[in-house]
Amino acid sequence: MQGTVEDVDVPSASDVLRRCRELVRPALVDAVGRLHPWTGEMAAYALGWSDTAGTPEPGGSEGKGVRQALALLGAEAVGADAACAVPGAVAVELVHTFSLLHDDVMDADALRRRRPAVWKAYGTGPAVLAGDALLARAVTGLAGTPGDHAAAAVRRLCDALNDLVAGQAEDLRFEHRPWDGPGAVGPEEYRSMAEGKTGALLGCALALGAVLGGAPEPTVAALDRAGRHLGLAFQAVDDILGIWGDPATTGKPVHADLHRGKKTHSVLAALAGGSRAARELGTLLASARPTDAAAERVASLVEEAGGRAATRGEARRHLDAARDALRAAPLTRTAARELDVLFAGLADRVM
Amino acid sequence: MQGTVEDVDVPSASDVLRRCRELVRPALVDAVGRLHPWTGEMAAYALGWSDTAGTPEPGGSEGKGVRQALALLGAEAVGADAACAVPGAVAVELVHTFSLLHDDVMDADALRRRRPAVWKAYGTGPAVLAGDALLARAVTGLAGTPGDHAAAAVRRLCDALNDLVAGQAEDLRFEHRPWDGPGAVGPEEYRSMAEGKTGALLGCALALGAVLGGAPEPTVAALDRAGRHLGLAFQAVDDILGIWGDPATTGKPVHADLHRGKKTHSVLAALAGGSRAARELGTLLASARPTDAAAERVASLVEEAGGRAATRGEARRHLDAARDALRAAPLTRTAARELDVLFAGLADRVM
Repeated sequence: MQGTVEDVDVPSASDVLRRCRELVRPALVDAVGRLHPWTGEMAAYALGWSDTAGTPEPGGSEGKGVRQALALLGAEAVGADAACAVPGAVAVELVHTFSLLHDDVMDADALRRRRPAVWKAYGTGPAVLAGDALLARAVTGLAGTPGDHAAAAVRRLCDALNDLVAGQAEDLRFEHRPWDGPGAVGPEEYRSMAEGKTGALLGCALALGAVLGGAPEPTVAALDRAGRHLGLAFQAVDDILGIWGDPATTGKPVHADLHRGKKTHSVLAALAGGSRAARELGTLLASARPTDAAAERVASLVEEAGGRAATRGEARRHLDAARDALRAAPLTRTAARELDVLFAGLADRVM
Repeated sequence: MQGTVEDVDVPSASDVLRRCRELVRPALVDAVGRLHPWTGEMAAYALGWSDTAGTPEPGGSEGKGVRQALALLGAEAVGADAACAVPGAVAVELVHTFSLLHDDVMDADALRRRRPAVWKAYGTGPAVLAGDALLARAVTGLAGTPGDHAAAAVRRLCDALNDLVAGQAEDLRFEHRPWDGPGAVGPEEYRSMAEGKTGALLGCALALGAVLGGAPEPTVAALDRAGRHLGLAFQAVDDILGIWGDPATTGKPVHADLHRGKKTHSVLAALAGGSRAARELGTLLASARPTDAAAERVASLVEEAGGRAATRGEARRHLDAARDALRAAPLTRTAARELDVLFAGLADRVM
């Protein structure tokens, strides 16, 4: 199934991401330049372009730019030039940055990509404002896209935005739910949350590329579906890294999600197993937020009760579903292979 | 100049507002109903429809609905049916509610319409999320408007959003500026902030009505200009009420803006006067945030130095400019008169 990935003429995932970042960069710089100078400074910090003094930090803390790459590849996959998808790429990247800024406020996450989160560096109010500015700019840029596809693109972005916000609402509400028993978070609820929080914007990125490239609706829908499955795989990977990830790689504290009592896939799957380890885990989680030592024990019990394996399986299933969705659509060969490489690269962090 | 206002067949400002609220209400209820239930509950609280337990509070803390009324009247003023402007009315009302939620977080304002602000009642993170949900829903609804004008309407709303956020950024930055001397906030900077923060959305509301009603661009522009001047008058009125307003009417603490050290028009105008009172005021403000007793003294000095009169003059000038902009446009007689009544009603709180 991974046959194409090994072909010698296919670039690596990081090559694909780099090429796309370079294509989008001028338009992204232009969009940030249109913000109020103060919100622009915070946006440049959030994007990893500069430090809190506004001094350029080339490359240091920049994101991989997955969403902008998906937008460009979405256009290429339907036979259009990547350039037509640049406004879509800018929009999804700005929306992603907006959501990171606001989510970090809501989750009280002090670190983002090994640096203080924007709200830690600039204050909560300014971080909220900078997020608002990014969101407004994202929609504005897309609405102003020349050609006939701007309106359809804006509607796509809006639908993803609503899903994104609803997914974040679910995630926050889950914190108030019990770990197990009748009120526990079920697998379907978890999936719906993760699809909104992570899948909607990845699906939107691919779909926007196709919309701006003039593709027919069934192709757009297939790409959206592929991106949503990719998002579910991505979220599963993130859940694994949130418990067992190396802080040097994740940029977050060790066992971060356990300390926050987050309802991640691995813990929910472990508890649902009903083994002895699951029961001990349930008791431990019901008592209090884990200390460092207890978090270590929780992580071991989650693994013993099969939570890590279940989440790895979840990631694999959704990665396969994402690739199937791609294969079912009439896409150009080169872009389809690059997407396949990219999809695999994003999930293989824990495979 | 106020001749038409006294005509017997013209409804009062509150009649106009009530009629418009009734026309918009079903669509606004529908839009809030499409939110995630939790963000929907916060939105209903913010709109004054219910208390924090979700229990309906009919009419108690509802806003006047100025923006939704302007959207409907904007359509009627260009000869269209008010119904066509309902999606615009919903959008501006949701954007207004979004901005109140987020501004209260940024300004740490604990009270809104005599009740705890959403962030006080539900927490900062949830208030940020509810604001995001409202903003996303506002753009989504407008982008989905049937007919040929949705795209132009979305572009208008986006432009207003960018101005709104930039105005809020300016307002927050002003807090770090000195009261007088070379770094002081000048009248032009103040005006630009107030036009963004308050005028942009009022102008947008009128303009959206005209756009959705199919009006030509010069008429849309004239209505936008009228709304922006109305916003500047409105902000001047607000600045007066923020110092001298009755807490029972404003729903805010007495001297609220003085305690927060806000750079309002009255204080800036008083300081710029250069009188003995202005110099004493400058010394007092430079020393520290005023206590209750000192705030009383600051308010007296601002008045003595001509600040209150200057702001009343500012409100009057912009109200006149707003009415002039209306008169210069080819508007239907009934709607133009209702707009005139509404404009006067909004400004006469301090006249």
